[in-house]
Amino acid sequence: MSKINVGLVGVGRLGALYARYLAYQIPNSNLLAASDIDPATETIAKELGVTKWYPNYQDLIDDKQIDAVVIVTPTSTHHDIVAAAARAGKAIFCEKPLSISLDEARAMERVVAETGVFFHMGFMRRFDRGFRAAKQKIEQGVIGKAVVFRASSRDPFRPSLEYLDPRHSGGLMIDMGIHDIDIARWLMGDVSQAYATGAVLAYPEINEVGDIDNAVINLTFENGSLGVIDLTRNGVYGYDIRTEVLGTQGTVKVGYLRETPIVVMTKEGVTHDTVPWFMERFGEAYVAQLQNFIEHLQKQKEPSIKCADGVAALQVAIAATRAFKENRPVSVSEIV
Amino acid sequence: MSKINVGLVGVGRLGALYARYLAYQIPNSNLLAASDIDPATETIAKELGVTKWYPNYQDLIDDKQIDAVVIVTPTSTHHDIVAAAARAGKAIFCEKPLSISLDEARAMERVVAETGVFFHMGFMRRFDRGFRAAKQKIEQGVIGKAVVFRASSRDPFRPSLEYLDPRHSGGLMIDMGIHDIDIARWLMGDVSQAYATGAVLAYPEINEVGDIDNAVINLTFENGSLGVIDLTRNGVYGYDIRTEVLGTQGTVKVGYLRETPIVVMTKEGVTHDTVPWFMERFGEAYVAQLQNFIEHLQKQKEPSIKCADGVAALQVAIAATRAFKENRPVSVSEIV
Amino acid sequence: MSKINVGLVGVGRLGALYARYLAYQIPNSNLLAASDIDPATETIAKELGVTKWYPNYQDLIDDKQIDAVVIVTPTSTHHDIVAAAARAGKAIFCEKPLSISLDEARAMERVVAETGVFFHMGFMRRFDRGFRAAKQKIEQGVIGKAVVFRASSRDPFRPSLEYLDPRHSGGLMIDMGIHDIDIARWLMGDVSQAYATGAVLAYPEINEVGDIDNAVINLTFENGSLGVIDLTRNGVYGYDIRTEVLGTQGTVKVGYLRETPIVVMTKEGVTHDTVPWFMERFGEAYVAQLQNFIEHLQKQKEPSIKCADGVAALQVAIAATRAFKENRPVSVSEIV
Amino acid sequence: MSKINVGLVGVGRLGALYARYLAYQIPNSNLLAASDIDPATETIAKELGVTKWYPNYQDLIDDKQIDAVVIVTPTSTHHDIVAAAARAGKAIFCEKPLSISLDEARAMERVVAETGVFFHMGFMRRFDRGFRAAKQKIEQGVIGKAVVFRASSRDPFRPSLEYLDPRHSGGLMIDMGIHDIDIARWLMGDVSQAYATGAVLAYPEINEVGDIDNAVINLTFENGSLGVIDLTRNGVYGYDIRTEVLGTQGTVKVGYLRETPIVVMTKEGVTHDTVPWFMERFGEAYVAQLQNFIEHLQKQKEPSIKCADGVAALQVAIAATRAFKENRPVSVSEIV
Repeated sequence: MSKINVGLVGVGRLGALYARYLAYQIPNSNLLAASDIDPATETIAKELGVTKWYPNYQDLIDDKQIDAVVIVTPTSTHHDIVAAAARAGKAIFCEKPLSISLDEARAMERVVAETGVFFHMGFMRRFDRGFRAAKQKIEQGVIGKAVVFRASSRDPFRPSLEYLDPRHSGGLMIDMGIHDIDIARWLMGDVSQAYATGAVLAYPEINEVGDIDNAVINLTFENGSLGVIDLTRNGVYGYDIRTEVLGTQGTVKVGYLRETPIVVMTKEGVTHDTVPWFMERFGEAYVAQLQNFIEHLQKQKEPSIKCADGVAALQVAIAATRAFKENRPVSVSEIV
Repeated sequence: MSKINVGLVGVGRLGALYARYLAYQIPNSNLLAASDIDPATETIAKELGVTKWYPNYQDLIDDKQIDAVVIVTPTSTHHDIVAAAARAGKAIFCEKPLSISLDEARAMERVVAETGVFFHMGFMRRFDRGFRAAKQKIEQGVIGKAVVFRASSRDPFRPSLEYLDPRHSGGLMIDMGIHDIDIARWLMGDVSQAYATGAVLAYPEINEVGDIDNAVINLTFENGSLGVIDLTRNGVYGYDIRTEVLGTQGTVKVGYLRETPIVVMTKEGVTHDTVPWFMERFGEAYVAQLQNFIEHLQKQKEPSIKCADGVAALQVAIAATRAFKENRPVSVSEIV
Repeated sequence: MSKINVGLVGVGRLGALYARYLAYQIPNSNLLAASDIDPATETIAKELGVTKWYPNYQDLIDDKQIDAVVIVTPTSTHHDIVAAAARAGKAIFCEKPLSISLDEARAMERVVAETGVFFHMGFMRRFDRGFRAAKQKIEQGVIGKAVVFRASSRDPFRPSLEYLDPRHSGGLMIDMGIHDIDIARWLMGDVSQAYATGAVLAYPEINEVGDIDNAVINLTFENGSLGVIDLTRNGVYGYDIRTEVLGTQGTVKVGYLRETPIVVMTKEGVTHDTVPWFMERFGEAYVAQLQNFIEHLQKQKEPSIKCADGVAALQVAIAATRAFKENRPVSVSEIV
Repeated sequence: MSKINVGLVGVGRLGALYARYLAYQIPNSNLLAASDIDPATETIAKELGVTKWYPNYQDLIDDKQIDAVVIVTPTSTHHDIVAAAARAGKAIFCEKPLSISLDEARAMERVVAETGVFFHMGFMRRFDRGFRAAKQKIEQGVIGKAVVFRASSRDPFRPSLEYLDPRHSGGLMIDMGIHDIDIARWLMGDVSQAYATGAVLAYPEINEVGDIDNAVINLTFENGSLGVIDLTRNGVYGYDIRTEVLGTQGTVKVGYLRETPIVVMTKEGVTHDTVPWFMERFGEAYVAQLQNFIEHLQKQKEPSIKCADGVAALQVAIAATRAFKENRPVSVSEIV
């Protein structure tokens, strides 16, 4: 297979970024078409060299020239677009989270299985060089047996209340926590139980929509290992994503909190900058993931992250959410 | 009051260290007497200039010259020694944890109250310059409102099984966790609920005595804030004590993982050493705490840490232990 | 002006990298043609989509479709290619160093002036985000008046003896030092005097070609400030480029010595990786510089770095080399 | 020999610190007597338990009970006190620099040799755990052959003009640089040549006394290795002492720039504190050096640092000073 003709569905904040990556940074991708319900985004797509614009995603899917559909729309629309693309036999890249409904997620897993299409679940952290190096060290046995997983994810500000509404976002533990849960599964194995505490501590207005801004999630893995994740919307000092795996022979930490390599020291103290937001931290990982998607598709290899990974992470996130709401540990197998 | 005549009860590993500090580093302390059930420790005491040796602690307490009793014996003996010293009207310094029994701890609180003696509860981390600076920053409002407490305590090896036996140690969450719980209370306020997971993951032989080697403790504070502590006996790479308080305007981290300020870089990588064990990390804090004890006693000020702090921390540690055993969140008020 | 048609002269190690950047990363660059005396590099160019291949650079320069010539050939060929391109009225990007001969460098400056072509002198460090942030802090007055410049450049291995031969490379202080000298001029101003020591300390075989592998260069700036640069070919632990400017109110440091954000801690110590080589450290700066070249050319702005900057840096590097050889401080004005 | 009876000559800023260390921190030292021309310091000495006070140092030296004389007076008085103490057969500890006159320094070396007294030259950095660890790594061959020495010493403010007057201080390169020169000799071997640049760049008033506030010193070692030291009085951000030795197989860095292990991160940036002044950085090294002095004296071992080390460091510092004044490289053998 030569260059892959890509159709992008969703040209919002993240979608526009994907468009740029697909247009300029990935040699074997040909960004042919784009679709968005917002007509204003057509300009963005055209400036990036997209030649076909579809107001309706179904028309993009029906375009015979399109080999692969990259889906970066709001989560609630993932199911329908994935199902349509799968039935049209297109290769699919779907941004996280798969869905906020386990029923929908499982339906997607079924349609992908039935149609046999190539499906890549978007969890870009697995393509970050830091996380990859950590996984490699663990697999090499450098830290012995991995026994405790510990992660923090901190956003530097709160999104709009509209975005936060759990009816669309699934709530903090699904919307933000799904990344850490996926990494936890990737590095440690499947999760058997979750417990969580959470609260509105920084932005009282979040109460209006029924979400929270801080949470602590305990995980128990099927192999008996332990885990903990803390999430916050008030990491006002910078975008701070840290993960550590403690083993029986050592520990490995992934973290990064500097945008540029400068340090300024004055009488007032020592200062360096921080990573302001996710593109500065993970831009390279997004590119690497899209590159991997295009390459595996071209070379007819298995997708690196499967639909089942999206389902499993969601199941854990739902268990954590229920644990928080009911103030009790929840077995993941209870979430059906 | 001029120099304080101190009698040391317990000349074990930590006791011998206290003896050295009391003999050489604290100008207004006069280490006059010592007592230990192990006759072999008499030599250590004598070498440090202790002139009176009592095989039996009661004789030390009965010595009219003694102003203050410093208790560094196994936890199970704290109650009887504290009670005897209080009844003899001596000022008391008691090493953490106060007890592993809440009943005993409360009995000690009562005898101290009834006799009115000066009682300093030993939680040396409160005297570490790092933790003090963190508390100061929080009180100055630098991070806004404190909303999430996050701590790790990692011992570089496991103690003897005899030491670990929960009948004497109280188990991991009391023996190790009490330090983090005290710091959590000091920085965040009282705790209302605890949940915990734990397991034997690194040293299978710990199963023999019924303790665990790794744990994750969730805390909910009375003011609604959240907390998490992870504890391990397999921090084999060094003695690693970290605490972070995330606020609405920023975060403050206390950590320290280098013994000497050197970095070596070769083809094999970049390396620096780590803090091997608690004396290298907290020696200065131990001295500062004893100094504070002597000074407050001399100047008739209130003790900096009270018996009630020892009781409250124990109560939280017991709640966490029960939460782990019963796999459910436990309200601290339930522990009576 | 729409997309710029670029002709690349030199498709060696660095040239191939430039080809990739010009082909994929810079939207307004159209990499149309390439030239190299080594016919084997034609394949590389073709794979990157270059449609015109010229064994002889003069033919590339004569191609009417070409707007701009990017020169990444050995230093000794710069003069002739620049002169030819200038006479053909092409915009020019010339990789550092301009030349190893001050006479040649001045001849290039003259031909550029006479023909009035757009000429960008390649000193990519000026486009690194770290160095840019440092310059900004200095200009904002954050460190007061800049008084001492201090830089280290360390290559992780020695190049081939053929490459090192000072007849082609100009010797260590020109070949490696020119980057630090340019940054020194950019941050501190012009240099009035140089002194240097140097020796063959790590690779005795370098004596065969008459170069050295380590050097320390003292600089005095025209404004009276002081500077020091140390250069080595035996930074075997990684590619280590550090610069510091000490001011009267503080200091600013640029450095970076980690490739991925992971830290591994075991009983053997704490390790993190290092930046292996210049592409990992400065790839982004190379892209930013080419982007700037294309953009300024398109928008008819002045080039960001001029031919005179190449001449001035060379003059200081020659002064340092002479100072080393004659073991005496050499005034830059003495180098004519 | 049991406890050593120490007489302290000089109870100024540093002398008072020494008094405290000798009184409290060094078990086998008995601080018996003190002397200072300033009668106001008698109180300080008495509070530390000194029982004998001598307004005149000769009386202290004549005191038969005194075993050892610790000299912490202004440099210009070192010669006479050392000579008197040596003739009285006392063991001697002399603070750096030995003298600012090479003639005097050599006279001291002779009187020490003739009388055969125990003489410890005070260069406390050799007792810092960081520098000791670096020396050990180098001796273990961890970095291969040591080829480049690189040090910075930065004081956070300028001393009084009276103190700076080169007639008393010897000027910046002797007063401050002697520490770095001693460490350079200790880690790399003897120095054969020095060159230096220097200027008044931060405090114009220093011109009044004829000293400078910034300097860069190039060193060439007898074994052919290279070195560079930069000195400043305007390290206003903190007391910053860094040393690095680059070898053929790696590099080792000693540095330390944090007083407490806390980091604060807010929207304004990431900050940590710095080491404010020498006692916070090197207090432990001062104690270790005095401990070593007392212990070697007691056990009749050789002194760890000899008078000849004081002479040799001074000779290099004088060469650097002359090099700066005459703007030419100066051979150390030229300084006689």
